[in-house]
Amino acid sequence: MARELVLIGIGAGNTDWVTQAAVKAIQRLDVLFVVVKEKDLDEFVEVRRRIVAEHRDRPLRTVELHDPPRPWRSTPDYPAAVRTWRTQRLAQWGQAVAAELGEGQTGGFLVWGDPSLYESTLAIVKQLVAAAETEISVQVIPGISSVMALAAAHQIPLNRQGRAVVIEPARLLAEGMPEGTDDVVAMLDGHQTFASIDPEGLDIYWGAYLGSPDQILVHGDLATVRQEILEVRAAAVDRKGWIFDTYLIRRR
Amino acid sequence: MARELVLIGIGAGNTDWVTQAAVKAIQRLDVLFVVVKEKDLDEFVEVRRRIVAEHRDRPLRTVELHDPPRPWRSTPDYPAAVRTWRTQRLAQWGQAVAAELGEGQTGGFLVWGDPSLYESTLAIVKQLVAAAETEISVQVIPGISSVMALAAAHQIPLNRQGRAVVIEPARLLAEGMPEGTDDVVAMLDGHQTFASIDPEGLDIYWGAYLGSPDQILVHGDLATVRQEILEVRAAAVDRKGWIFDTYLIRRR
Ligand SMILES: C[S@@+](CC[C@H](N)C(=O)[O-])C[C@H]1O[C@@H](n2cnc3c(N)ncnc32)[C@H](O)[C@@H]1O
Ligand SMILES: C[S@@+](CC[C@H](N)C(=O)[O-])C[C@H]1O[C@@H](n2cnc3c(N)ncnc32)[C@H](O)[C@@H]1O
Repeated sequence: MARELVLIGIGAGNTDWVTQAAVKAIQRLDVLFVVVKEKDLDEFVEVRRRIVAEHRDRPLRTVELHDPPRPWRSTPDYPAAVRTWRTQRLAQWGQAVAAELGEGQTGGFLVWGDPSLYESTLAIVKQLVAAAETEISVQVIPGISSVMALAAAHQIPLNRQGRAVVIEPARLLAEGMPEGTDDVVAMLDGHQTFASIDPEGLDIYWGAYLGSPDQILVHGDLATVRQEILEVRAAAVDRKGWIFDTYLIRRR
Repeated sequence: MARELVLIGIGAGNTDWVTQAAVKAIQRLDVLFVVVKEKDLDEFVEVRRRIVAEHRDRPLRTVELHDPPRPWRSTPDYPAAVRTWRTQRLAQWGQAVAAELGEGQTGGFLVWGDPSLYESTLAIVKQLVAAAETEISVQVIPGISSVMALAAAHQIPLNRQGRAVVIEPARLLAEGMPEGTDDVVAMLDGHQTFASIDPEGLDIYWGAYLGSPDQILVHGDLATVRQEILEVRAAAVDRKGWIFDTYLIRRR
């Protein structure tokens, strides 16, 4: 009897973005693996808890996966330290799954947004399964990504007719809009990159805490609204202690 | 009492990809607008019918929007003919909504996949609302796009760590992989573009009828598998009469 791991995309912020497929998967889980990050946000844990509570009519055994502490950026030979950290994390997850996922059982991971976008869970699970002593099958259930959430909230298409859309970490945007591209969705922005690029001819559609009751939206000519976004964003960080924001930069 | 139109992303092929938010929206609709295309596929109509039947416990009034016949490509001044066609379509939709969406009512559109990717419904609804004589508010509910469905089916991330992903119509891929990009998702491919580009150093993750019982997946070195995909694809078109396929081209 094969063991199975299911990666369940739960959507990026609204508990109602859970799909029927995710609900069915949650209902048939024997065990839920919960990755506990060093400084995890209560609200994220809470969203996951609410989704399970709402869709599960019998108790769900939960196993916490504690990541080893990440090396400091100032560690000598930082890349090597990160490699070691990855190996340790893989070993810990592997041991937990080997110990907790019994024969014929299904284990689950609840993944924020969609499992295929800027998420490491899938890659680790794939490695873990490849290294496992018993056969474990994998299933992935797609979810509503923050990219789709952003477009829906602003009621805009992501692409222009016949044109491309680029999704990228904001770090890449710092080098400017990619050649030949008019529409870029930036994620993972730790440095308010939107405010440091040349705003000439660009519009922005910015969204924070998408799908949640705290959702904030700002859009307009980048030159005109970037200061407002910086202020709104700083106030939100002050108030809540964290922020998740995503934005589309669109050439006019 | 305001009128409301809701665009409901229903996912790109699996009726279980419908979200709780979509289900709740379907349940509170007063009227469903169904866009009937000239040569619409029974299976698409059937997916929509099944979703409504499954999640709705009381009858749903349905209004068909018939698009005027599209001009032939060979029409003299084709662009002008398309403009006229668009104006007529907008007028027809506008009249239907004005006649069928009563005060305080909510009307819905079921949109394939996610409403923000290569879909015209949102743009038309926005124009229609802007031109309407009464106030109509709009809401958009995100859906599982074929892009996420492709990644989930192949159990791959779309992006490489720290890198961009491009989503584009296959037509643009004919000009080659975009400069500086290693991962491109191509949609709307009427010409099997994957088979005509230089395959050197490229892998493909191809999927057809994603999420449905007919789902077909092929992946591998583009040079090696492109012939297989052409054959599998041709056989599927023969068997079913139509195909929907999407693929990721990934630089090794
Ligand atoms: C590690 S990535 C995970 C993305 C996720 N897999 C998805 O599909 O949305 C985290 C980034 O996603 C974006 N993000 C996720 N949820 C968000 C939300 N509710 N509002 C705004 N941005 C969000 C932010 O850019 C954040 O830095
Ligand atoms: C007009 S676009 C609509 C895309 C849709 N809004 C979405 O989010 O997936 C149609 C294209 O989407 C892709 N597509 C949609 N559903 C698909 C499916 N189930 N399997 C494979 N490709 C699909 C194909 O490339 C098709 O040509």
